[in-house]
Amino acid sequence: MVSAQRFVLATRPEGEPTRGNFQLERIEMPDPRPGELLLRTQYLSVDPYVRGRISGIRSYAEPTAIGSPPPGHAVGVVERSEDSQWSVGDIVVADTGWQTHALVCASDVRKLDPGLASVTTSLGVLGMPGFTAYAGLLKLGKPKPGDTVVVGAATGPVGSLVGQIAKIRGARAVGIAGGPQKTSFLLSDLGFDASADHRSKDFGDQLRAAASDGIDVYFENIGGEVFNAVFPLLNPFARIPVCGVMSEYNSTSSRPGLPQQLLRTVLNKSVTIRGFVFTEFWDQLFDRFLTDVSGWIREGKVRYREDIVEGFENTPDAFRGLLRGENFGKLIVRLSE
Amino acid sequence: MVSAQRFVLATRPEGEPTRGNFQLERIEMPDPRPGELLLRTQYLSVDPYVRGRISGIRSYAEPTAIGSPPPGHAVGVVERSEDSQWSVGDIVVADTGWQTHALVCASDVRKLDPGLASVTTSLGVLGMPGFTAYAGLLKLGKPKPGDTVVVGAATGPVGSLVGQIAKIRGARAVGIAGGPQKTSFLLSDLGFDASADHRSKDFGDQLRAAASDGIDVYFENIGGEVFNAVFPLLNPFARIPVCGVMSEYNSTSSRPGLPQQLLRTVLNKSVTIRGFVFTEFWDQLFDRFLTDVSGWIREGKVRYREDIVEGFENTPDAFRGLLRGENFGKLIVRLSE
Repeated sequence: MVSAQRFVLATRPEGEPTRGNFQLERIEMPDPRPGELLLRTQYLSVDPYVRGRISGIRSYAEPTAIGSPPPGHAVGVVERSEDSQWSVGDIVVADTGWQTHALVCASDVRKLDPGLASVTTSLGVLGMPGFTAYAGLLKLGKPKPGDTVVVGAATGPVGSLVGQIAKIRGARAVGIAGGPQKTSFLLSDLGFDASADHRSKDFGDQLRAAASDGIDVYFENIGGEVFNAVFPLLNPFARIPVCGVMSEYNSTSSRPGLPQQLLRTVLNKSVTIRGFVFTEFWDQLFDRFLTDVSGWIREGKVRYREDIVEGFENTPDAFRGLLRGENFGKLIVRLSE
Repeated sequence: MVSAQRFVLATRPEGEPTRGNFQLERIEMPDPRPGELLLRTQYLSVDPYVRGRISGIRSYAEPTAIGSPPPGHAVGVVERSEDSQWSVGDIVVADTGWQTHALVCASDVRKLDPGLASVTTSLGVLGMPGFTAYAGLLKLGKPKPGDTVVVGAATGPVGSLVGQIAKIRGARAVGIAGGPQKTSFLLSDLGFDASADHRSKDFGDQLRAAASDGIDVYFENIGGEVFNAVFPLLNPFARIPVCGVMSEYNSTSSRPGLPQQLLRTVLNKSVTIRGFVFTEFWDQLFDRFLTDVSGWIREGKVRYREDIVEGFENTPDAFRGLLRGENFGKLIVRLSE
């Protein structure tokens, strides 16, 4: 028997999650049944969407049950295999949740080639966040050369790829991020054309200046005040793919509220607002995404940044920091051996 | 010289328009120049979108200037022609504004065949409102067989066609209208599957019952409380074409407000909200629209209702009643000889 640790949801957060919402447990892992693999987690992805799942509100997915681990993809090594396709030692990515070990169905697992790219990229730029950026921007945002594309949380794994793909497609990339260190990074390292600091008092003016020709695509992953600042700047036929509303995940009551004129602006400017979850496009587009984005990384057209936290025990704090924007790049927890 | 009358915008309305916002003028019509026609108006269309234009707020079109006539399509007869393609006595449809006579460019005019359909249909079911329904529903709403399609102002020229085309495409049609006379008409005369009375105290319950399988397409021409009642009933991948927000045109201050959870619902249910103006699809689709809808009328698959007000002098009052939902069918003013 393998002894494992996991975090489970102890209580549902009201507003910002606390350390006490999560409880560390020791469990003995059962043996894998036929078709299953036992994985040991090496890297665990910590993502904003988890805040929605632990709220208990039904969204596009079932909420995390009290007593169960919050969801999360992880890079793991196969420790035991009851499926002929997989061998002990294989490196895979799977949705394990916040656990040091997991039993997974062999068919739900994707094999990684550590020679091709750093395995952690499978949790970020070459994983679900990168795919969300790629599919949402290209299928729904549809940037044309010369368009202005605006994205929030722009140093994160979704936003940074949205801006860089926009550039590859000949559009102007405007990134919104919190604080001067992040906004500088957008210009100096990721090649964005302009930036705006949503923590700055003159954020609205910064955004207007950064998007002086108006906004053709707003890739929405923030919501709240950022959405409200973007809205008056939309151009006719603007597209707004919505993949997240991170600023609202912790909200307990009525926040800034939406622009009263939202529907009128949608009408007057023939705006498209379109929510999506990456799964909609996965089967159709994942292979092309991997080919395109890994190629762009090799060619130096796409850069990515990871923010790696050491130690499984720090997962809840890392998650809480993520919701406050304290991470800088894709947040990943590295598990000790 | 021909002596004409016209209504001009005297002052901009605050909230509900008053009779005093419009002023009746007598003018002498100048002679048509080369390429122009002088029309005598027979039927004038009075439409909700006019409320937006006279507000002075820039929308998808320039606002009506003070001292100019509000916009409106009309059926008119050519009284003088300075274009070789047109003869005195031709019956045409053109954007004349609220006038008994108009000078128009020959190239902006569409000829009508009075033998084919009642000429008034060119202002309603076979004109701009009908085209708005056809293009918005088919290009943006994309109803599939079995879908539930909900539309407001459902006895009006847009809503009634939306519901009937939904039926032709194998979807369920649910109409929202004000008062029992109109909701009964939806079921008995237009073949809608269900209805809900937005003036009724239990409107929300009525709508929930009428759309018991949820809502796949909401064709938005109302806004306000109707939008808010529809929102929680949306199914995954619901589509919301927005062609108008009639309930908000008279609003002076903050009305009910939008659902706080709007973006989260858009995300969780992969909803599409898409504003449009009929002109977007005109060149591409108008001929097919005329063929399809006139065919459906002949086959008895599409019915329409007109609400004809006698006398040009009653145009402002007819318009004011329209914004209160007092008309029953496409509102048209008939001008005396």
